[in-house]
Amino acid sequence: MAETRETLTADYNTLLAKARDLFVLGWTQSLVSWDMETKMPPRGIALRSEQLAQLSQIGYRMATDPEVGKLLDKIEKNPNYETLSELEKRNVYLVRKNYDEQTKLPEKLVVDTAKQQAIAIDVWKKAKAAKNYSLFSPELEKLFELRKQAAEILMGVKKTATPYDALLDLFEPRVLSDQIAKVFSELRGSLVSILQKCVASPKQPDLSVIQRKVPANNQEEISKELARFLEYDIESKNAGGRIDTTEHPFTTGYYDDVRITTHYYEDLPASSLFSVMHECGHAIYEQNLNRDWMYQPIGVSSGYGFHESQSRFVENIVGRSPEFWTHFLPKLKSLTSNVFADVDLDRFVHAINQVRPSKIRVEADEVTYCLHIIIRFEIEKALFEGKVKVAELPGVWNQKYMDYLGVKIENDSEGVMQDTHWASGYFGYFPSYALGNIYSGQLLHKLDTELPSWRQQIIEGNFHDAKQWMAKNVHSYGALYDPVDMLKKITGEEINPTHYINYLNTKFSKLYEY
Amino acid sequence: MAETRETLTADYNTLLAKARDLFVLGWTQSLVSWDMETKMPPRGIALRSEQLAQLSQIGYRMATDPEVGKLLDKIEKNPNYETLSELEKRNVYLVRKNYDEQTKLPEKLVVDTAKQQAIAIDVWKKAKAAKNYSLFSPELEKLFELRKQAAEILMGVKKTATPYDALLDLFEPRVLSDQIAKVFSELRGSLVSILQKCVASPKQPDLSVIQRKVPANNQEEISKELARFLEYDIESKNAGGRIDTTEHPFTTGYYDDVRITTHYYEDLPASSLFSVMHECGHAIYEQNLNRDWMYQPIGVSSGYGFHESQSRFVENIVGRSPEFWTHFLPKLKSLTSNVFADVDLDRFVHAINQVRPSKIRVEADEVTYCLHIIIRFEIEKALFEGKVKVAELPGVWNQKYMDYLGVKIENDSEGVMQDTHWASGYFGYFPSYALGNIYSGQLLHKLDTELPSWRQQIIEGNFHDAKQWMAKNVHSYGALYDPVDMLKKITGEEINPTHYINYLNTKFSKLYEY
Repeated sequence: MAETRETLTADYNTLLAKARDLFVLGWTQSLVSWDMETKMPPRGIALRSEQLAQLSQIGYRMATDPEVGKLLDKIEKNPNYETLSELEKRNVYLVRKNYDEQTKLPEKLVVDTAKQQAIAIDVWKKAKAAKNYSLFSPELEKLFELRKQAAEILMGVKKTATPYDALLDLFEPRVLSDQIAKVFSELRGSLVSILQKCVASPKQPDLSVIQRKVPANNQEEISKELARFLEYDIESKNAGGRIDTTEHPFTTGYYDDVRITTHYYEDLPASSLFSVMHECGHAIYEQNLNRDWMYQPIGVSSGYGFHESQSRFVENIVGRSPEFWTHFLPKLKSLTSNVFADVDLDRFVHAINQVRPSKIRVEADEVTYCLHIIIRFEIEKALFEGKVKVAELPGVWNQKYMDYLGVKIENDSEGVMQDTHWASGYFGYFPSYALGNIYSGQLLHKLDTELPSWRQQIIEGNFHDAKQWMAKNVHSYGALYDPVDMLKKITGEEINPTHYINYLNTKFSKLYEY
Repeated sequence: MAETRETLTADYNTLLAKARDLFVLGWTQSLVSWDMETKMPPRGIALRSEQLAQLSQIGYRMATDPEVGKLLDKIEKNPNYETLSELEKRNVYLVRKNYDEQTKLPEKLVVDTAKQQAIAIDVWKKAKAAKNYSLFSPELEKLFELRKQAAEILMGVKKTATPYDALLDLFEPRVLSDQIAKVFSELRGSLVSILQKCVASPKQPDLSVIQRKVPANNQEEISKELARFLEYDIESKNAGGRIDTTEHPFTTGYYDDVRITTHYYEDLPASSLFSVMHECGHAIYEQNLNRDWMYQPIGVSSGYGFHESQSRFVENIVGRSPEFWTHFLPKLKSLTSNVFADVDLDRFVHAINQVRPSKIRVEADEVTYCLHIIIRFEIEKALFEGKVKVAELPGVWNQKYMDYLGVKIENDSEGVMQDTHWASGYFGYFPSYALGNIYSGQLLHKLDTELPSWRQQIIEGNFHDAKQWMAKNVHSYGALYDPVDMLKKITGEEINPTHYINYLNTKFSKLYEY
């Protein structure tokens, strides 16, 4: 059959219908996982793993359907290809990228990796409980070798300089390890400097103003009030969100059904408070995607880094600011029967911004957080370059924690085994966390220019305009651009840690009077 | 290839692997529906209907996979077919039955029906809230037409006398509308007679002993206590169940993950109490299926009628008995801060067994309940015979309620829109409710013979032996037999309303002293 503008349109529409199927199935997978984490009776786990394996298989078959490959070939070779709009071309590009990533790996490698992931996670849990890395090391080694094989194949597909770059590209497209190394190097120096100044300062926070007991039901009311402030609707008849409890908070969903989770530790009310703000940042992103692009490849977020920029913006730049607490501290007092009655704004804001070297990433403050990430990135890079072996990870890990953070790791459960990412085979994921913080600084710099009144609005209890700015400049663009291009479009810049460093310096020099 | 005993085994195993896939997918469908009813944010409905339609399509393709048809043909024609065990033959029979039912329906009809179901349920909720049948009628009409198309096709497959019989067969295999009409006719006469005697009796219950305000959180504690008594575990680290809230209570799940729902009306504590017992009856059935048959076609319940026999046995034969309340009334008193402190056993048991004509099926007493079902059966039959139109349902409904129960329906929310079944497209489902009650009477008759101490055990707070009797005689047989055959096997009888009528007469003649 001759390839015409008509066949191009028909092929494109068929391709998009297939992408739509994959999107709908993806939300079913997410929902079934959400239920497993939040609602499933414990005995349900065996049946649940059958369900998840089945959905994963159905999704894999949809994504690797040879018909998709044929449609892509036809569309790309159609003499009228250039008549497609920018949006249409981007949709084709995104389907192609996913199709190649999925189909170029031999089925045996995919199956072996899935099996080894399950084994490694299981063993990781046991080894972590036993504080015994030597149990975990052989299984992690096998998983690493499988991911390395995949990385080597993907390197050929993506034409990246190194296998590790091919994995990074899965999480942060076209951001390369050399560039990350350069950016992280600059960031690391500044963070260590800020950290040292904070630690050396005679002005230290009084943690007693936040370490107070707040019953779980009061913390739930605080969550609802935070959601109201952030315009994440969980209450109205037209609500598109909900909050449940899990040990590890997360966000799942798209558009009209975006769910967050938190945990309520009665002795640590700040934990849930900032978790909720963090997850609301993710949720707001999903809820403000461009509705016209729903079900299309471009109709999802721009990726891990930008997602983290949104959650960290809400959690830290907004949520740990004096402006927010000028508004919210009175509410917190009234929602907790005046548990915080004696607390004044300055002491409270300093306490929630305590800077101190620590061992656990997910509990780290704004200044040290990226140092935890940088350590992981450096280790991953060395691992893929063959400069360090899996069995040697604890030594390397502990040395870096001593060098950068000055903390002594007592056992590997609070060290190299603290995160689930490597046990899950997610090599290349960690850098996006720090990139997200860097992006948040660049976005903040632009927001300050374009909406200079936004901090005053927060004092007045109005997050709407700042949210709309993010929706307009970030959320609504979906996956139309790769992160680096979107960053350029919004800020005119490449990845640049300067603004984030400036933000931290301004904030912490005031708090710690250095 | 020659058909041998080896190819028979191989084909059978392949067939069962495909049946297993269908079982796993079925639980995903149920879970996604459960979430829609219990947890989904309201705005999620559009995406949810896409998901349900997709899962329905995937399930349809699995069930109608031509490979299944080929395997069935090969197995059935294999000269060694007779060497299959009874269980294996039954598995083959059940796959064949489902395959024929599914393959004869065009895929478009199946997908359109799934979509229209989601729309009709959503509109039903809104129309019911607005007491406005005219909102609902057009969507119900569309759904009815789709189900009628399916019924007409299935009539040819099943070789039933009418399209409606073909739908009945989906819920209660081999039980036909003529037989139902005959059994219901006998039942109706007896029920009307008992109803009249109760209404005419000078001894009437004092409802003030149950019409007391009980806060929702106390009702939740009552639910938990009921679940403990019934051995439906929702609390332990190995729990296989959970209780959530929905307007219309239901049960969903299999084996290790069986979930019930209820509603907590503070002024009507009895409503949730008996709903929970009812749904626990369903849940216990699913949890006591034969584990060796899990994922096999025979590894599910025997069908709707037997399911209802179990829920009604627990709700009424146990739950509204003086024996149960001898045990449970003290617990109720202590769980409700003595709201019921002044209540004595006899007055309480009479009050929870009040007989009176009413409008709402799910709130109906034991005597009138089946009259509600008989009305629905007659309407469905007339609908499929073309003797009444969807738009005319309110008039027909209201007239029958006046004729049989003597009650005047004030609006369609308490009339024709009270149930979700038609909004879900479940035409042919209702008769199973009354059949379940009839079966429960037949099972009770047998239980009284084989475990004469069971009522004394209930007084002592022990439901275990009665539950085990049901597990051994009903639950563990799964779908090995059609309901009529299982009834014959357990009781030696055909469908026979006599025992149920006798049970009611014995019970209510004592309570009402007629």
